[in-house]
Amino acid sequence: MTEWIWINGEVIPLSEATVSIEDRGFQFADGVYEVIRLYNGRPFTLDQHLARLERSARGIEIVPPMSATQLKSEIGKLLSRASLHDGMIYLQLTRGVAPRNHIFPQTKPTLLFYARELPPMPEIDRCEPVKLRTVVDERWKRCWVKSIALLPNVLAKNYAITNGADEAVFTEYDCVTECSASNLFAIIGKELITHPVGPKVLPGITRMLLLDIAAAVGLKPVERPLTESEAETADELFITSTTREIAWVSHWNGKPVSPGHYGEKSKKLHAILRDKIARETA
Amino acid sequence: MTEWIWINGEVIPLSEATVSIEDRGFQFADGVYEVIRLYNGRPFTLDQHLARLERSARGIEIVPPMSATQLKSEIGKLLSRASLHDGMIYLQLTRGVAPRNHIFPQTKPTLLFYARELPPMPEIDRCEPVKLRTVVDERWKRCWVKSIALLPNVLAKNYAITNGADEAVFTEYDCVTECSASNLFAIIGKELITHPVGPKVLPGITRMLLLDIAAAVGLKPVERPLTESEAETADELFITSTTREIAWVSHWNGKPVSPGHYGEKSKKLHAILRDKIARETA
Repeated sequence: MTEWIWINGEVIPLSEATVSIEDRGFQFADGVYEVIRLYNGRPFTLDQHLARLERSARGIEIVPPMSATQLKSEIGKLLSRASLHDGMIYLQLTRGVAPRNHIFPQTKPTLLFYARELPPMPEIDRCEPVKLRTVVDERWKRCWVKSIALLPNVLAKNYAITNGADEAVFTEYDCVTECSASNLFAIIGKELITHPVGPKVLPGITRMLLLDIAAAVGLKPVERPLTESEAETADELFITSTTREIAWVSHWNGKPVSPGHYGEKSKKLHAILRDKIARETA
Repeated sequence: MTEWIWINGEVIPLSEATVSIEDRGFQFADGVYEVIRLYNGRPFTLDQHLARLERSARGIEIVPPMSATQLKSEIGKLLSRASLHDGMIYLQLTRGVAPRNHIFPQTKPTLLFYARELPPMPEIDRCEPVKLRTVVDERWKRCWVKSIALLPNVLAKNYAITNGADEAVFTEYDCVTECSASNLFAIIGKELITHPVGPKVLPGITRMLLLDIAAAVGLKPVERPLTESEAETADELFITSTTREIAWVSHWNGKPVSPGHYGEKSKKLHAILRDKIARETA
């Protein structure tokens, strides 16, 4: 099945889509991106993703070439053509093409997005756990910008995999911040705890949704730094991301963590998230 | 005049050169690069640049698709075709094209380089100074890798320009490390001082040459962290880079710095560097 991409206003097969080697996304990582999950052929929390795109773009002084409303309409048209049930949209915005120079050029940004099929999410009880490996955080200090300068994340993720884990969790001094491509949550007693958004933590959309949902399962949402030993000994521990929703953590640096299965409260949060997804993408 | 690029073994006009939007250089900043200066149509310190390319590539676990010797020969062929007198080669190596996923794919790296004309360097007495602006260092901690994840450098440089300077100099606590696209040197008494290479400092080729040359002008090369006040009050202060050679610093955060003109010792270093360039590119 052909995958389609919208690139600077044109819709073409993804396999044919290219950018100039002088696109600043290629030479300077001078751009931002979003990944949006599709359920039932519809994008979930698209408005929130497009709002974050605008914040990221503003954070690096790129002016998007169209409004969120226009972009939403163009994404809708691409989705009609793609006609996927389960999948994702990958969207990228760069500062555009110009002869290589650090100085911001006067040029038109490059904007593209494509839809790709993904397997449907498994039932909650069948969701696979993840094994985490700690990696000292060597990333830059504006991780709240969802930039394409992902090399440190890529290196951390692969270091984790080489060491028998699935995902890297960043540590800074004694604290754990987030993972290479997901946020981290701990349930300790009656609290649902995650690190505040900022220099080292991206404002994950699923992260935000779970903080909203917490109260519904009797948990108090708390945004504070979490120490490594708190995370390791939490009652329940999970990661969140757009494409994974929630994945419970089974191992921390090779050691099993509590409770050894998908925790009851985590599962309840997941069930409420699923209800919301079903409602909003019906 | 057509600019030529060698891209994955093919030589084509630069204006036609593209990469897949799923090249990891475009989606993950998953690559490294080099810039080599051409004098008299010949690349200066090409071996040193290619050695650094290999170190950078190893640092992020990319295996270059050819040896430095083969690469040197291909660069030579492109230069014959380009027939430039003054110019540069821009070279980039990425992990290649694969469906987007943080995990290292099994794929062939993307390798490209192109030659571009530059104006000849002015006589030493006519070299323009630079105004520096301090910027808190928010970059990652592997700056010794010459990676294309340059977004923080781009933002710092443009912040400097917006604030009336030409180049950003990074500060970390009380120390100054390097600039957004150059290394920083201070002459204090009989010492030529620059920050050691490491997490926050790239092993600049011109930097290395100057440390070698220092003794010839009676200066002791010293690699140690330099405080901001030492830099501001140094006898002479300059930056180095492949394309600028040496540029003396006239202002630091808007204030004039010593000696207010191109310093005598700095100029002597520059003259010896020019002799070396002339000899090696004759």
